[in-house]
Amino acid sequence: MAALAGRRGRVAVSVSPAAAPSGLSIPDTMRAAVLFGPRDLRVVWKPVPVPGPADVLVKVAMCGTCGTDLAIQDRPFPGQPPFGSFTPGHEWTGVVVARGETVDEVAVGDRVAIHVHHGCGRCRNCLNGSYTACLNYGNVAKGHRASGFTVDGGFAQYVTHHASSIYRLPDQLDWEDAVLVTTAGTAMYGIDRAGGLVAGDTVVVVGPGSVGLTTLQVVRALGAGVTIAVGTRDERLALATRTGADHVVNSRQTDPVARVRELTGGRGADLVIETSGHPTTPELSLRMVRRGGSLLFLAFYDEPVNFDIGRANREEVRLVTSRGEGRTAVGRVLRLAASGAVRGADLVTHRYPLERIQEGFEALRAKAGDPIKVVFTP
Amino acid sequence: MAALAGRRGRVAVSVSPAAAPSGLSIPDTMRAAVLFGPRDLRVVWKPVPVPGPADVLVKVAMCGTCGTDLAIQDRPFPGQPPFGSFTPGHEWTGVVVARGETVDEVAVGDRVAIHVHHGCGRCRNCLNGSYTACLNYGNVAKGHRASGFTVDGGFAQYVTHHASSIYRLPDQLDWEDAVLVTTAGTAMYGIDRAGGLVAGDTVVVVGPGSVGLTTLQVVRALGAGVTIAVGTRDERLALATRTGADHVVNSRQTDPVARVRELTGGRGADLVIETSGHPTTPELSLRMVRRGGSLLFLAFYDEPVNFDIGRANREEVRLVTSRGEGRTAVGRVLRLAASGAVRGADLVTHRYPLERIQEGFEALRAKAGDPIKVVFTP
Amino acid sequence: MAALAGRRGRVAVSVSPAAAPSGLSIPDTMRAAVLFGPRDLRVVWKPVPVPGPADVLVKVAMCGTCGTDLAIQDRPFPGQPPFGSFTPGHEWTGVVVARGETVDEVAVGDRVAIHVHHGCGRCRNCLNGSYTACLNYGNVAKGHRASGFTVDGGFAQYVTHHASSIYRLPDQLDWEDAVLVTTAGTAMYGIDRAGGLVAGDTVVVVGPGSVGLTTLQVVRALGAGVTIAVGTRDERLALATRTGADHVVNSRQTDPVARVRELTGGRGADLVIETSGHPTTPELSLRMVRRGGSLLFLAFYDEPVNFDIGRANREEVRLVTSRGEGRTAVGRVLRLAASGAVRGADLVTHRYPLERIQEGFEALRAKAGDPIKVVFTP
Amino acid sequence: MAALAGRRGRVAVSVSPAAAPSGLSIPDTMRAAVLFGPRDLRVVWKPVPVPGPADVLVKVAMCGTCGTDLAIQDRPFPGQPPFGSFTPGHEWTGVVVARGETVDEVAVGDRVAIHVHHGCGRCRNCLNGSYTACLNYGNVAKGHRASGFTVDGGFAQYVTHHASSIYRLPDQLDWEDAVLVTTAGTAMYGIDRAGGLVAGDTVVVVGPGSVGLTTLQVVRALGAGVTIAVGTRDERLALATRTGADHVVNSRQTDPVARVRELTGGRGADLVIETSGHPTTPELSLRMVRRGGSLLFLAFYDEPVNFDIGRANREEVRLVTSRGEGRTAVGRVLRLAASGAVRGADLVTHRYPLERIQEGFEALRAKAGDPIKVVFTP
Repeated sequence: MAALAGRRGRVAVSVSPAAAPSGLSIPDTMRAAVLFGPRDLRVVWKPVPVPGPADVLVKVAMCGTCGTDLAIQDRPFPGQPPFGSFTPGHEWTGVVVARGETVDEVAVGDRVAIHVHHGCGRCRNCLNGSYTACLNYGNVAKGHRASGFTVDGGFAQYVTHHASSIYRLPDQLDWEDAVLVTTAGTAMYGIDRAGGLVAGDTVVVVGPGSVGLTTLQVVRALGAGVTIAVGTRDERLALATRTGADHVVNSRQTDPVARVRELTGGRGADLVIETSGHPTTPELSLRMVRRGGSLLFLAFYDEPVNFDIGRANREEVRLVTSRGEGRTAVGRVLRLAASGAVRGADLVTHRYPLERIQEGFEALRAKAGDPIKVVFTP
Repeated sequence: MAALAGRRGRVAVSVSPAAAPSGLSIPDTMRAAVLFGPRDLRVVWKPVPVPGPADVLVKVAMCGTCGTDLAIQDRPFPGQPPFGSFTPGHEWTGVVVARGETVDEVAVGDRVAIHVHHGCGRCRNCLNGSYTACLNYGNVAKGHRASGFTVDGGFAQYVTHHASSIYRLPDQLDWEDAVLVTTAGTAMYGIDRAGGLVAGDTVVVVGPGSVGLTTLQVVRALGAGVTIAVGTRDERLALATRTGADHVVNSRQTDPVARVRELTGGRGADLVIETSGHPTTPELSLRMVRRGGSLLFLAFYDEPVNFDIGRANREEVRLVTSRGEGRTAVGRVLRLAASGAVRGADLVTHRYPLERIQEGFEALRAKAGDPIKVVFTP
Repeated sequence: MAALAGRRGRVAVSVSPAAAPSGLSIPDTMRAAVLFGPRDLRVVWKPVPVPGPADVLVKVAMCGTCGTDLAIQDRPFPGQPPFGSFTPGHEWTGVVVARGETVDEVAVGDRVAIHVHHGCGRCRNCLNGSYTACLNYGNVAKGHRASGFTVDGGFAQYVTHHASSIYRLPDQLDWEDAVLVTTAGTAMYGIDRAGGLVAGDTVVVVGPGSVGLTTLQVVRALGAGVTIAVGTRDERLALATRTGADHVVNSRQTDPVARVRELTGGRGADLVIETSGHPTTPELSLRMVRRGGSLLFLAFYDEPVNFDIGRANREEVRLVTSRGEGRTAVGRVLRLAASGAVRGADLVTHRYPLERIQEGFEALRAKAGDPIKVVFTP
Repeated sequence: MAALAGRRGRVAVSVSPAAAPSGLSIPDTMRAAVLFGPRDLRVVWKPVPVPGPADVLVKVAMCGTCGTDLAIQDRPFPGQPPFGSFTPGHEWTGVVVARGETVDEVAVGDRVAIHVHHGCGRCRNCLNGSYTACLNYGNVAKGHRASGFTVDGGFAQYVTHHASSIYRLPDQLDWEDAVLVTTAGTAMYGIDRAGGLVAGDTVVVVGPGSVGLTTLQVVRALGAGVTIAVGTRDERLALATRTGADHVVNSRQTDPVARVRELTGGRGADLVIETSGHPTTPELSLRMVRRGGSLLFLAFYDEPVNFDIGRANREEVRLVTSRGEGRTAVGRVLRLAASGAVRGADLVTHRYPLERIQEGFEALRAKAGDPIKVVFTP
């Protein structure tokens, strides 16, 4: 531990004494989940990471999960660190306990949330404001980091991240609200790419999962005129109604395209947001959009899908792609959360201590108890 | 009246019998204010207008006023019809009583509000979606019409307008809400031109008049993070607080630039919206904007103003101009009004019967009783 | 013919005597191709159309053809007039011989070209600048007209069109250049929707047909850095090289994705424009685009295609749809044509008199003589 | 020199042996101009700078000058290093002689040009693609650098810059072309902010100095339809004609507003680009713009100017601000230069060895010999 202590010493210097809470002490080692192989996530002892000059060190309060957390346990993503060392977790929140020497964006003691992607800051995409599409994705030497994907993330007691990607929490937010802002940031960024102005518009959200339900909250907060949720399970649709949907459509019982057309005077919706990731929903969603409207994809698909590009062209439907929480969308979302318009805590259904992470992911995988957002507390 | 009766007959044919409320009868003549000379507005008898094939005929319920209604009485605007025939009034609302033969966008009996500008539909600006900047402004033969500016408006019992510019009112709205949607549409269009996405942003509104207060409501409805109103009178600022301002600054007592910087951690506001029209406020507003932020002008100025374009360039402040209620902004606003987020009635301070229009305008000119929105009822 | 003569008289009044070429005489009847049934296009006698108050009457000099001209002969498009009356043809050029009473945009005697779509000017899409996506498509009563699709077009001696859709030709252009500007306008509008700025970018054009080759000319004229044409026939690729392609790829001999990646340092192209309409090219095109680049569709597809939306999302590729010649793109193109940067005449391969239109279409259908652009002269 | 030698040693390690030209040797000290006080620029010996891990070290071939080089000698800019140490020069070009350990964007031996601003990569503006408006401008610790403004620039034998801001030169370009690409990048970025699509448009450039003349070349390369240069000296206007202006207006002899209106059929220009920096030209330029057109400022002004914002609003003229060479505009420009469309060398009028820099600046200040671009060679 001598070497680590030495590294720790350098960090201590950069912590402003005024800002450091008395009694704060950072240990040398911590408990952290490490992926040892496919679906083999174990909590072990690991050195506490040391923040670089532009980083903060955060004591994790909570870390959420999403579908990609399952996917990367089966098939490593590009740039993912090797089995045996990698700690995933990209929806984390906690308290700043140390910061690099150049950091003044947040103070020690601040409660913070994050966006995942810190771009390299030097490729054409980063320079033009598309840091989630960094051309140096996974190139740590050049500065890129995707927390919980290409560098260690938040299924741990401590985690570092670049100051660019850290946001101070408003006082009103508790941890369960905060852990959802990364998801809400995805919705916000997608809507930004789709034009940003949804006030008065009719918006359909397909897929009432955590992304879809958060998206409903966000479009509501932006003044959407009429909101319609499309799903396959009545209990989720009931939740969508409580979350802000004016109308819900169970696509197992009702033709969702016909219903959306009926609700829009035959015209179709101004904006359809597809969050389900099911291979048939892109095409279904397209047919819900009015001529000249927009279709936003907030999901990934394992394989190519069947999609009527000719129709999209004839109807001049804008097809909007989006990846992650670009354009500092998490900052916007935090203000909406502070006002109560976006309420992450409504969607947290399962809570586990970090030590039981394997059990939590098994429940998520099995969809036991209809999980929406599963969170871990170290 | 024989000729008029003949014209009336043609209209009657185009009214769908099913849609016509029983007992509806359209007279040949009506009471209407006519501008006979500078500041000489008199209510006289005039033929009821006859809608063309793409027009509706509306029985006016209420017509609001704004600063330009004063201006055009002093100095006719380009394209304004001659003294002795012209009926102004561009913020009107009422009930559809007849429609041209091609109109199915609204039905007889519908309560409606309007946007002012119907573009020619054939110039480069109209074809590209900028109908408020129509290159054939005032050219009635080519199809352009600005209600209450270049053709007769709503200070009358009846008025016609093109179907493109008519919006059905949600049931929740009363006439005083409806009369303000034209103003709110101006705010919405300006925000659209400024990028549309203000969620989470710090927004300053300079000038708590009817445009400024409506703008506060609109940016609130779009999820603005922090709102600041800047004005010169405490009673107006108190109203701004009730209307949605988080902070107010009386610029007679406090340096507004310093105060905005203080409220934004020294950085400046993301968006400043200048609605006052005072010659010193553009420059003052510019100094409130953060580097890379936006400054939206929702006012006109009688003369060139002193303005630091060099600073705007160095700070890369986006300067956003805007005219009228473009991009069908009134439609967006009506949905926000239906949800209660935009409440026009809060701003109506003075009500007069049409017959006393001269008296109403004198009060407005003299600012007697601190008028915000003065409305006339025929 | 008496009635028609009467109508003719009204038009004559609106022709400015100064502008009318001496000796101009408009007959009552004309030769025009009429679609009498599937693939049954016959040249017959028909009344010369009478321009409305905002229209021009054009004596056709030449009319081009595109793939949709074949499609509509097999399966009528929405809004298409019935067999027995309808004259198709949407890429026409000629001389103004009369104009409606409100028209001053062009003069009698002017040589003109067109864009196809005149929007209704009153729906949300038209009001917002998307007239090719008019919500009243095919509704002639409300003012919409797509020349050669929903109203009579240019396979005739005379044709009318709305003044909004008529462009005066620069003197340098001959008819074969002019007949191509409608096609070039499609390319220009697509590039406008894709962002407009291609200077210095690497652009791939898939499909060296008339749209693809014209698109190559247009991106060249806009300062594209490197251009790559992908096709399946060497003679077309040789033409692409002469037209402005820096590199050509025969996808039957070389993997076009690998080749594009090789030519771009592994990165992919900034913009890929798919013009072929083949069902496998959208997916192929997607894989040629760099992360954060754009994929523009300038083709239609008969059926849904297999397309990797998940990849587009992960790579944040902008998917750009486009219909027709929106945003007055033909006006921009005419200036490029005047400077010689866009040369339509290079692509005219087959010329027929109108009387032999059936023969011309049979050649086009059979691809006899490798037609790129087939034109008819009345 | 021992300490420096040590630093040099670290760099040597990071230079890939394969890439290093044989015989390349980097000295410890170099000749560099240092600003010792107002207008007191002297060439002295100074240590050769050492590139950081993301930097390159460039042997300067040439460094150009612009108006700000004069301004900063009179009144230091924000973030400017103190007198006695600071080497200005922000339009430099040269050969890479070493690179930091993470740099693979360029190789040793590459000829390169630059953009000036390397943003911090962590503020809201940088994250959203506005690195020239970095909120940490001048904060070197946080990573920001403006070469020749806040860190040492190119009036020296060697200079370092961040890899983000370095562009490899096409082979066709000589040093005099390359030294102008920074200026051309300013024009390109401004046009990007103005919408990017000028094809077919009428563009006025006010001020035929180095920025104005370069801007003419750029708008030509982007397909501008008609170009008009406005200036005050016939010899400059003659040069504008040779550079690509279709029309020139000497505003001392002809009313430029009237002349532009005459050349545009009374309508005004689609885009006016003001590059002169004279306090009366913004207002003059505004009156040249057509309704709904754009006015781009590529100049700075010492004081607030008189400007008719009311007119801009009424005419809905888009006012476009722009700072520096954002959005990797220099990369676009280099491709245009490679094709011969942008020719920097045409504008180099004065050449001095670095040792005579004081003399060169005195000539520039005195406008002796009508300098357009003055360059220094170390």
